[in-house]
Amino acid sequence: MSELAGSAVHPFDAAVALEALGDGRYTGHTHPAYANMVGPFGGITAATLLQAVEQHPDRLGMPLSLTVNYAGPVADGPFEVTARQVRTNRSTQHWSLDLAQDGEVCTTATAVYGIRRQTWSSTEAVFPAVPAADEVAVRPFPEFVAWGRNYEMRYVDGAMPEPGASESDDSTTTVWVRDAPARPLDFPGLAALCDIFYPRILLRRGRFVPAGTVSLTTYFHADADLVSAQADRPVLGRARAHHFGKGYFDQSARLWGADGTLLATSHQLVYFKD
Amino acid sequence: MSELAGSAVHPFDAAVALEALGDGRYTGHTHPAYANMVGPFGGITAATLLQAVEQHPDRLGMPLSLTVNYAGPVADGPFEVTARQVRTNRSTQHWSLDLAQDGEVCTTATAVYGIRRQTWSSTEAVFPAVPAADEVAVRPFPEFVAWGRNYEMRYVDGAMPEPGASESDDSTTTVWVRDAPARPLDFPGLAALCDIFYPRILLRRGRFVPAGTVSLTTYFHADADLVSAQADRPVLGRARAHHFGKGYFDQSARLWGADGTLLATSHQLVYFKD
Repeated sequence: MSELAGSAVHPFDAAVALEALGDGRYTGHTHPAYANMVGPFGGITAATLLQAVEQHPDRLGMPLSLTVNYAGPVADGPFEVTARQVRTNRSTQHWSLDLAQDGEVCTTATAVYGIRRQTWSSTEAVFPAVPAADEVAVRPFPEFVAWGRNYEMRYVDGAMPEPGASESDDSTTTVWVRDAPARPLDFPGLAALCDIFYPRILLRRGRFVPAGTVSLTTYFHADADLVSAQADRPVLGRARAHHFGKGYFDQSARLWGADGTLLATSHQLVYFKD
Repeated sequence: MSELAGSAVHPFDAAVALEALGDGRYTGHTHPAYANMVGPFGGITAATLLQAVEQHPDRLGMPLSLTVNYAGPVADGPFEVTARQVRTNRSTQHWSLDLAQDGEVCTTATAVYGIRRQTWSSTEAVFPAVPAADEVAVRPFPEFVAWGRNYEMRYVDGAMPEPGASESDDSTTTVWVRDAPARPLDFPGLAALCDIFYPRILLRRGRFVPAGTVSLTTYFHADADLVSAQADRPVLGRARAHHFGKGYFDQSARLWGADGTLLATSHQLVYFKD
């Protein structure tokens, strides 16, 4: 954490900070460092909703899945998060969440938490053949996207198209990424990292296209020990789309630890206008 | 529809039938034809929740995404579905849903609906090289799984392991499937089809393993015209897992029309004990 002066709070932690009002209600505030072109970066909103469960006194275990629905724009300013415990079983717990401003819901979410136990295990997804993170140059995000400055991105392939780029027939991006300044990985941090892939339509079309996530689902494969073992090393993300048409496309991502373990798989449906 | 005598209601339609109580509340009843080993087939529960929006007077457009969280068992008998319209924008609409019995929530869901307009389109996912449906033998599901009898399944590969089967290092199943008796495709029907893949852990281990879906997310790529154009032809489904470990695994599926168009992509997190 040498980049952080003394006891300064990391901007990520400032952005997801919630003040508990009791009964599953919290207040928070958008953070300018995580602004997107309209409203905040979707990943920071996902992280903030997860954070509400993380600090809830009745939380059982760790996150297994998280679905976030971006129902309307979040304006710069304060917001309220509500976390409702829908059902708690012996080893799983279901949450229903929303983020509202002035009484209007901007974002809804559901999360499944649970206790994880040792079982048979196997990873079928294959860690891609890529150079190590420190062998790939850091490439800054376009300057007008504030949140991109909070991530150190090293594109192995599929960087955001530059002006004059041509179309591509493959929407795949492979990128080493970590928070900037570096920050030890935790579940909210991982939830946000699952959304750092710019909309795949830009890569296919080779230019800017208005687009925004409608719904995002993340499955956490890493347990708490594996997440904290990542420390502040870069994780490898790879994302691609399956289908674009009639105003929407999907994209799926895999997030791998530097040691080649699969940390999360994540899927989203994205609106576009083209 | 020659298999259906006269004006008989198809068992699928009987299973997802809801009586509107007004204000987004409905009553329904589990159907013995769609029973699973414990409670109903997850796909029929997903279809029932979608049906609540389909028949809601304020519905805008068609389904874009659906997430269903299986929070607790659904007992044989009546249930109540509540569909809350969270937010309606110009072209999208966000729903929050649950299914409850005796006041206890068994299932939660969120759905995004919207109006679809012509845009640039492209399918990156590749339709698999498979024989036509009528060249593949129908293979019955194990007899103790009632819901399996409502689907005509023609496994191209990855059929459910028979007694004495060995382990597999690949969790892929490819199957031509349609309702039995045949039934014209609609959105609830497609939502259910996304869940007809038995748990991938059974294929990997070559034997029965206790397992159950925790959370299911489906992205609908087909619009209403494309869905109805499928009529009652088989659709091709392919599913596989990415990671198994510490009690959970994910599986992802693609559903293709007989004409090779991608109808839906679907993802789920599954509990297992092994």
